[in-house]
Amino acid sequence: MKQPIGVIDSGVGGLTVARELMRQLPKETFIYLGDTKRCPYGPRSEEEVRAFTWQMVNYLLKKDIKMLVIACNTATAYTLEELQETLHIPVIGVIEPGARAAIKFSQNRRIGVIGTEGTIESEAYPNALVSIDQKIRVNSLACPPFVPMVEEGTLSGPQAEKIVAETLKPLKDMNHIDTLILGCTHYPIIKDLIQQEMGTHIQVISSGEETAREASLILAYHKALEVDEAQPQHEFYTTGDIEKFRLVANNWFDEPVRVLKFVELEHVPSSAY
Amino acid sequence: MKQPIGVIDSGVGGLTVARELMRQLPKETFIYLGDTKRCPYGPRSEEEVRAFTWQMVNYLLKKDIKMLVIACNTATAYTLEELQETLHIPVIGVIEPGARAAIKFSQNRRIGVIGTEGTIESEAYPNALVSIDQKIRVNSLACPPFVPMVEEGTLSGPQAEKIVAETLKPLKDMNHIDTLILGCTHYPIIKDLIQQEMGTHIQVISSGEETAREASLILAYHKALEVDEAQPQHEFYTTGDIEKFRLVANNWFDEPVRVLKFVELEHVPSSAY
Repeated sequence: MKQPIGVIDSGVGGLTVARELMRQLPKETFIYLGDTKRCPYGPRSEEEVRAFTWQMVNYLLKKDIKMLVIACNTATAYTLEELQETLHIPVIGVIEPGARAAIKFSQNRRIGVIGTEGTIESEAYPNALVSIDQKIRVNSLACPPFVPMVEEGTLSGPQAEKIVAETLKPLKDMNHIDTLILGCTHYPIIKDLIQQEMGTHIQVISSGEETAREASLILAYHKALEVDEAQPQHEFYTTGDIEKFRLVANNWFDEPVRVLKFVELEHVPSSAY
Repeated sequence: MKQPIGVIDSGVGGLTVARELMRQLPKETFIYLGDTKRCPYGPRSEEEVRAFTWQMVNYLLKKDIKMLVIACNTATAYTLEELQETLHIPVIGVIEPGARAAIKFSQNRRIGVIGTEGTIESEAYPNALVSIDQKIRVNSLACPPFVPMVEEGTLSGPQAEKIVAETLKPLKDMNHIDTLILGCTHYPIIKDLIQQEMGTHIQVISSGEETAREASLILAYHKALEVDEAQPQHEFYTTGDIEKFRLVANNWFDEPVRVLKFVELEHVPSSAY
């Protein structure tokens, strides 16, 4: 039996990361757990985010996962280091892969980052970038209209273009960056719109693609890549409404997804983490 | 004092990898050792390549390196696994990073690989690609004229364009690939020419850029990234003619390089490896 890779997220955004993981690692089996009931994590306290994340992690550890991917910017910012130190399996988040990719692409060392207000305020991306190269200049911009727009399904057309143009205006006006990190897992769904608005001279980086690439390296590094070529059977779990989750997932994936069941995480006693 | 990262190559080609390492990891110190005297490794036996590589590795281990980068396709193919199993520091090669990047970029799963005759015959890239995704189709092409062309300094103009066009014709005629791996460390020097000939719809991947990106991740994963922001002092060593090496290095780097000394590797007794 294939040993699965666990993917956790505060909701549906991490599905873009899961999709890239499945594309770049087609032999691997993934178990996705989205905490849609308590989403979004952005406005929550660090303590709450840590508690919720540990509940998800403990649920997946029982399924014998060989690696954990934190497909949520907020959870990565608050728990990555702690999980890496505590768990006996490799743990990767979505922030550093995007930062490293941006450093690779940028020629002028001026990098833009867009994300939710929480992610931008946390300065997780500037910190990750500058810790590697102190000469990098970062222009950050919170884009609150993007998540509701994506979840409502406004993905193209004049209305979508107008929202994207108005939201990105402050970043475009600065006109110095050559690389833009999509620092929110929802944004790859409107990557084409963002690319079109920013111009083809800007390298737009999707954290999901880069996280999948790094997951591939870490598995290879640990000699833990799956060799069995049989079609993997992925599993999706949600803490919220199953039908709503399935609807979004089926919109974002080429094939229908198996949303197995509702998970009641609140029942995990707090002593478990 | 900063703990250095060792970079070994059969000659000067690995300097393109070193250049990317220095750009993407500007706080790190690098020690480069090029075995120019016994270059190229391509036509040599596996036993010889292994012996020469171990001599270089033993020389660098005495300099207390914290990571080893094998910036040579032939040496990677023959020694990566053995070095990873034997050394107590992380070891990375140039083949897998290029393969993983190609998998990330390719949408149609048709990937081209160009390299020296030795690298193409070894099938190291197709093996790395297909081991991750068995549905990938690889078109390989040996490009023997490229290394002499780059070393002679024919980097632009009608003569260079003619060589590149004639050499790449078989690959271009197939016209299916959407991604092309430069599977030789010399080729990034003529990346623009290759991109121009293949067309802008082809994603051209430089192994050096991707290797540097993965070195950055592995260092972070081991919490071994340098934090000191002082300008690092890199060192370059060659087993061959110092002036010839310096000439090539100075052509490829923005700043003059310090070629410290000639290293006589033959003096390492074979029992040392």
